[in-house]
Amino acid sequence: MTTDLNSSLPSEGINKGAEGTGGLGLIEEQVIEFKQSLRLVSGRALTGFRLAFETYGQLNAEKSNAVLICHALNASHHVAGQRKDKPEELGWWDNMVGPGKPVDTNVFFVIGVNNLGSCFGSTGPTSLNPSTGLPYGGDFPVVTVEDWVHAQAHLADALGIRRFAAVMGGSLGGMQAMQWCISYPSRVAHAVVIASTPRLSAQNIAFNEVARRAIITDPDFCNGHFYGQNKIPKRGLSVARMIGHITYLSDDDMAQKFGRSLRQRQDYGYDFGVDFEIESYLRYQGEKFSSYFDANSYLLITKALDYFDPSQKFNGDLARAFSCVESEFLVVSFSTDWRFPPERSHEIVTALMQNNRRVVYAEIDAPHGHDAFLMDDPKYHGLVRNYFQRVAHELR
Amino acid sequence: MTTDLNSSLPSEGINKGAEGTGGLGLIEEQVIEFKQSLRLVSGRALTGFRLAFETYGQLNAEKSNAVLICHALNASHHVAGQRKDKPEELGWWDNMVGPGKPVDTNVFFVIGVNNLGSCFGSTGPTSLNPSTGLPYGGDFPVVTVEDWVHAQAHLADALGIRRFAAVMGGSLGGMQAMQWCISYPSRVAHAVVIASTPRLSAQNIAFNEVARRAIITDPDFCNGHFYGQNKIPKRGLSVARMIGHITYLSDDDMAQKFGRSLRQRQDYGYDFGVDFEIESYLRYQGEKFSSYFDANSYLLITKALDYFDPSQKFNGDLARAFSCVESEFLVVSFSTDWRFPPERSHEIVTALMQNNRRVVYAEIDAPHGHDAFLMDDPKYHGLVRNYFQRVAHELR
Repeated sequence: MTTDLNSSLPSEGINKGAEGTGGLGLIEEQVIEFKQSLRLVSGRALTGFRLAFETYGQLNAEKSNAVLICHALNASHHVAGQRKDKPEELGWWDNMVGPGKPVDTNVFFVIGVNNLGSCFGSTGPTSLNPSTGLPYGGDFPVVTVEDWVHAQAHLADALGIRRFAAVMGGSLGGMQAMQWCISYPSRVAHAVVIASTPRLSAQNIAFNEVARRAIITDPDFCNGHFYGQNKIPKRGLSVARMIGHITYLSDDDMAQKFGRSLRQRQDYGYDFGVDFEIESYLRYQGEKFSSYFDANSYLLITKALDYFDPSQKFNGDLARAFSCVESEFLVVSFSTDWRFPPERSHEIVTALMQNNRRVVYAEIDAPHGHDAFLMDDPKYHGLVRNYFQRVAHELR
Repeated sequence: MTTDLNSSLPSEGINKGAEGTGGLGLIEEQVIEFKQSLRLVSGRALTGFRLAFETYGQLNAEKSNAVLICHALNASHHVAGQRKDKPEELGWWDNMVGPGKPVDTNVFFVIGVNNLGSCFGSTGPTSLNPSTGLPYGGDFPVVTVEDWVHAQAHLADALGIRRFAAVMGGSLGGMQAMQWCISYPSRVAHAVVIASTPRLSAQNIAFNEVARRAIITDPDFCNGHFYGQNKIPKRGLSVARMIGHITYLSDDDMAQKFGRSLRQRQDYGYDFGVDFEIESYLRYQGEKFSSYFDANSYLLITKALDYFDPSQKFNGDLARAFSCVESEFLVVSFSTDWRFPPERSHEIVTALMQNNRRVVYAEIDAPHGHDAFLMDDPKYHGLVRNYFQRVAHELR
């Protein structure tokens, strides 16, 4: 194995690659400012906010062909193609979205939007807090999936999109697709929920909490106010990322890719340097991540994951939470995903069927664990392609 | 749920409890000094070493009834009963070892021994380095399971025990039992290997590596030389423990014990304090652990785990690694153990059977994950009891 291995696996994240754009051309980032206040679920509010987004394809005259793609933990609005200002960065779901791809931009107008609290252009912890004139840092309000969807609806309004042909996402993105169907039932024709869950398990929350502790207890975190102090809690962020990364890969996939292979050595080092390939890989992932991701954003987004639970208001009854839903659903899970295993998707499907919703469900037999949702497995992509062909038919 | 929950689960560790000693009386710790140098697998050596140990029951005249209990990551030689100097601390396997218990001290002479590199009395990082007169700290040599077994054999020699009726351990303790059968085939009549594995998987190593990174990157770690600086890398050690702890419990067990229950509150806090019971529990476990365990020991013991792989010298062929083994085996796994799942025990059993060894194997259906080996499940304890009755018969 060589250094290349360190960048060979996508991981709920940003694919950097040199592959072709598949005809999307160079993409320009857009930013929209909203002057109105956004009241948050927490009771706090943002006095005005900004959303960064990208679009691919053309909105039709009826404005009926829009597809919203929601991102997961550490991704962004840069879903597909090459950014004009950073052509080396291919969108994180470029294998899924583009001309002739499963979500075909010759047919659909696709929107990628960066969520509030993130660090890629939308209002977040690095933005200026109007009440202090300094970056929010640790004072940025905790945001929820409901808040994100609410903000995304403002973007849809601004673009004149009354109803989405589909709202789609993997993992945390799938939660947003579900929340759209609950918050705005009449505005979503189809929801595509991939490798997701109706709520985190105790084990999921546990992993998030350890990651947060690693960040918060890093002395360079300074209670979230590290921006002005020339500090970055890189150590904590790196450990947090390593923990997350383990949960994105399957045990089998890790065994096959790394096993017990030693890293550029014949024997153990008998010290605490790198012995195994898996150690080198994880350290590299941690380092890389801590060089571009914001620690406050990581905390915020893991909390949004923990808090998501539409059944909470209904004594844990997910079917009641879905009782208002009008959309049709495609739900996809992956056999080796132990972060959000197929059983979690079954809960979604069951609750939808109890409401007589039309649901296509597939469990894809794939070795790549949770990360499988970012891979271009032919069965998986064939399924999504077929589903979107059906969605396209309804446009006529 | 109340605060008591925080101490209700054993976890590869030290049970503190107020239950009775079951008739063992107050136990006195013993320490034995060896003047001779111990050459280590790494090529380094310890010039003399000390082992802390405890014994329960009486060694018979033939010295044939000795059972060696090997400890796992964070336990010690205090296996059973109450320590004379710390009567509040019940041994970590007190439910297994004692008069009338599965490993019956009315029949067997049981030895618990603390391993080299640990922080509970045997020579380790806090011991004085003879070449500097200061504590070893980060300079303590990396030790392996083979080294531990070698040191334990010195103890057996000193006690006049030529051959153990059984060598027994769970998890990392099970690795030591296997290593005994390889290093000293004629000195082990029976090996009892519980919830163990013939080698760590890439995922196992990954979790260990993240834990080590958390410790090593804690600024208070000071390259392992924190003792003289009035510092303790508590933050890193706490995160390391939290990570480990998640892997000891099953997803289902965590779901049942904690689920999404909130901690002494009716609604989310919308901050980064404690929202969920599972967060409170993990923080408590991390804090507690970091108050008594040594960071250098944690690093050393996780490395010993990573390095254990008797098949390595035989191109990964475990059957060849076991070709010298003369012992009979009891191998036990637990259905919900995802750290060392039953498949890992199957590898052990298969390799032993390829060598025509006599093996009893059982997979216990238990909800408690890896920690199940410390619980007193009746099926599990019944099995061990029956096995040791057979071992006892051979003594006559």
